[in-house]
Amino acid sequence: MTNIYDSAYDLEKAIRESEEFQGLKQAYETVMADESAKTMFENFRTTQIELQEKQMQGQEISEEEVEQAKKVVELVQQHPDISNLMEQEQRLNVLINDVSKIITKPLEELYGAPEEQ
Amino acid sequence: MTNIYDSAYDLEKAIRESEEFQGLKQAYETVMADESAKTMFENFRTTQIELQEKQMQGQEISEEEVEQAKKVVELVQQHPDISNLMEQEQRLNVLINDVSKIITKPLEELYGAPEEQ
Ligand SMILES: [Ca+2]
Ligand SMILES: [Ca+2]
Repeated sequence: MTNIYDSAYDLEKAIRESEEFQGLKQAYETVMADESAKTMFENFRTTQIELQEKQMQGQEISEEEVEQAKKVVELVQQHPDISNLMEQEQRLNVLINDVSKIITKPLEELYGAPEEQ
Repeated sequence: MTNIYDSAYDLEKAIRESEEFQGLKQAYETVMADESAKTMFENFRTTQIELQEKQMQGQEISEEEVEQAKKVVELVQQHPDISNLMEQEQRLNVLINDVSKIITKPLEELYGAPEEQ
């Protein structure tokens, strides 16, 4: 019987050494090293989180806020370093979601098919 | 470089074969095999999920609902098979949380300490 913690640390190491994580790390450091890119990215992230929190709390999001959010997205997408960072994040998200599905399979089988989220 | 998917499947196997998961499986099957315990447990779960959804959506939870929920909890805690199932669930949750912290460490290090949730 393999130890769960040993397996978890092996997986952590595999994630850390993966091309996907290394690509994200480099993209993140590139953005963080450029003051104007850093500020733009952080504004974008803050706007995203604020809108998500409102949505989760069932608060109404005004047309103005939607417009403002769209503008911020358009702005960051035009910045090659930031759009690269977002692509790298997306890649790693796919990987982490796959991993999460794999390791929660025993629970899913036990409790039945999960409801659509 | 270890493959992430291989490591994830190893971890899944370790979870599936663990004492914690096997204990949960047995506790779950015991409750499901007893019609009245099954109904009681499912009522409890439904009440919990409804309250959680209300809370997440920022809806007010009435005093009556809180009282009702407390009664349902007291009821299930008195049922040995159900309280055993809840303990086994708690045990596996601790394990899964630990695993989750371990494998998200690279991301946490990259993005800095996570905000308190
Ligand atoms: Ca289900
Ligand atoms: Ca932070």
